[in-house]
Amino acid sequence: MGDSLGVAMPASAHSEDDTAGIKKVVDEYLYAFLERQAAEAVSGRLPSIIIRTLAGFLRAGGKRLRPTLCVLGHLAAGGEVDGGLVGAAASLELFHAYALIHDDVMDGSATRRGQPTVHRALAAHYRGLAARRGDALRAARANRFGVAGAILVGDIALTWSDEMLNDCGLSAAGLAAARKVIDAMRIEVMYGQWLDVHTLGRPHGDLAAPLAVARYKSAKYTCERPLHLGAVLAGAGPDVLVALSRFALPIGEAFQLRDDLLGVFGDPTVTGKPATDDLREGKRTVLLAVAYTRSTPAQRRVLQDHVGDPRLTAAGLRRVRQLLIEVGAVQEVERLIAERRDQAWAALDDPLLAPRATPALRRLVHVLAGGVT
Amino acid sequence: MGDSLGVAMPASAHSEDDTAGIKKVVDEYLYAFLERQAAEAVSGRLPSIIIRTLAGFLRAGGKRLRPTLCVLGHLAAGGEVDGGLVGAAASLELFHAYALIHDDVMDGSATRRGQPTVHRALAAHYRGLAARRGDALRAARANRFGVAGAILVGDIALTWSDEMLNDCGLSAAGLAAARKVIDAMRIEVMYGQWLDVHTLGRPHGDLAAPLAVARYKSAKYTCERPLHLGAVLAGAGPDVLVALSRFALPIGEAFQLRDDLLGVFGDPTVTGKPATDDLREGKRTVLLAVAYTRSTPAQRRVLQDHVGDPRLTAAGLRRVRQLLIEVGAVQEVERLIAERRDQAWAALDDPLLAPRATPALRRLVHVLAGGVT
Repeated sequence: MGDSLGVAMPASAHSEDDTAGIKKVVDEYLYAFLERQAAEAVSGRLPSIIIRTLAGFLRAGGKRLRPTLCVLGHLAAGGEVDGGLVGAAASLELFHAYALIHDDVMDGSATRRGQPTVHRALAAHYRGLAARRGDALRAARANRFGVAGAILVGDIALTWSDEMLNDCGLSAAGLAAARKVIDAMRIEVMYGQWLDVHTLGRPHGDLAAPLAVARYKSAKYTCERPLHLGAVLAGAGPDVLVALSRFALPIGEAFQLRDDLLGVFGDPTVTGKPATDDLREGKRTVLLAVAYTRSTPAQRRVLQDHVGDPRLTAAGLRRVRQLLIEVGAVQEVERLIAERRDQAWAALDDPLLAPRATPALRRLVHVLAGGVT
Repeated sequence: MGDSLGVAMPASAHSEDDTAGIKKVVDEYLYAFLERQAAEAVSGRLPSIIIRTLAGFLRAGGKRLRPTLCVLGHLAAGGEVDGGLVGAAASLELFHAYALIHDDVMDGSATRRGQPTVHRALAAHYRGLAARRGDALRAARANRFGVAGAILVGDIALTWSDEMLNDCGLSAAGLAAARKVIDAMRIEVMYGQWLDVHTLGRPHGDLAAPLAVARYKSAKYTCERPLHLGAVLAGAGPDVLVALSRFALPIGEAFQLRDDLLGVFGDPTVTGKPATDDLREGKRTVLLAVAYTRSTPAQRRVLQDHVGDPRLTAAGLRRVRQLLIEVGAVQEVERLIAERRDQAWAALDDPLLAPRATPALRRLVHVLAGGVT
């Protein structure tokens, strides 16, 4: 690991345990960047609450999955990790912070990673300030201040992810190659989010829309593009990128399918959000589309009554869970996950991929398809 | 004007009338870019409504002030205009589209440039779709879809402004110099917007906050950074940048002070927004701070009753206008504008600035300080 980082790659970094080592150097890079930005802010630009909010969001959790895949894609393409690569990888996490903060505004979510979402936390902050000053006008606007603040914190995370990539020490050719991947990735995730928001509604049997969301928001954004970013920075050609896609797309879809199951059946203390959120939203998942297809008219009425109901109760949640199991939708989604997991596993045998990253990628197969964290 | 654009700079471009010529080539560059993106969208990435919405927003108006200043900054620093410079200038307009679309979401504005704002237009679109399909759930969520869509259209404009800058044909050194200016500009305008939103409220006499907004949102973002961008792409050194700042900061502040006056006294058919918007919002302007300082306790109560009142009536608007004139606040703001206009005018005599851009910059002094469009 390069001197430019001022940190040594932990001894374990290239062994079986290397994902923990990657997470550590990425985090150190991220926090050092934010500390530099905070020092500049004190000298007069951004209010410190913006940086504290963003730093708090990053420190509250996150597996650093995208940076980890970026580093592994680099190793799989035969590259050596240096400071520039770590900076490029870390910039994906700042981009991801932007995506999550804006998604939570768009979805009106209350919690993320077990904590209030950014717009909620900022609203509470401004409500408290206004109350202490006895300012009723500003108290009444606290929610709007929270949303506006969260949009801006997201915009700043997006801007800084750019700044981090531009300044991380890549060569001009490396930066140009990286930007092609990043430009494609940004539009893809925005497309996925557009689909995700604009297909909300009562359930029906259409599988195409939720599969497109899984493809764009998870398979391409979360897995394929981070691997490609790392790979192009090792000078990978199209054949290596295709080999990585053959791994990334099925495992990314499996990850989304697992997430859909966890969204309804997961333990809120593990997922960090209430198990009613996805159903109340009317999120169009493969799980619900499969369930709808396999339901009797009476069962379809149950789904239509509960999915998309903003007042869904715990009893309603139990009823939907029961139905999803009864009609075999859970089993079918588990089958789809297993199929994709096996495809991804087999793709790692491709001799085009340097074997150095394979143990860590195989472990990620279990994490992503299994919901293990 | 370079062949890479496929358009010739109009004959008038370097004469007295050159700002119209600059606007024309910038618009051609912008629309050609959007057409290329639309062609890609058809091939499967973004829904066409996103691009139609963004293109419609750009075509609905706008003076292309920032691209124009970028080109003039380039000429003032002795540069020759080519395709790369036009691309860099045009990227400022896409960035500005992002800033306005997100600002309108944050401010909850209904109209912009005489048309519904993006979140309102998209909400109406989704409401219509849902009604035609008899989908009550989606009809009830139309406003949320509109806000989510506008956040995404803004995000995409921001992303594409980047893509445009990266791909417009600048040299690696030119791009690196440009990015330093752009990175600073982006954080400054976000800071200005944060201040603008988070200082909303009942009026008081504090001049520092509205002056900081004028400095960051208008003087630096609208005037100084576009001029600097053009100048660094002509290889300008720090002395030329300082000379441009001596022009940009006073004229930018004058522009904001004029905008504050137009926000209360302007003709809605010219400003494109109701004259009650700023007052209902409780926007902290220099105009209101001056008025508050000069008011008697009875007059302050009038201001406190009406400014920040979301139900402000036409009669209330007339009363506030009357008061702003009576206490001499309008006259004082006109004096502040004239002072800054004269400073900017004098700054153009600096021999460090190539005289080629001076006639156009002098004309812009009248436009910006005078609210002439």
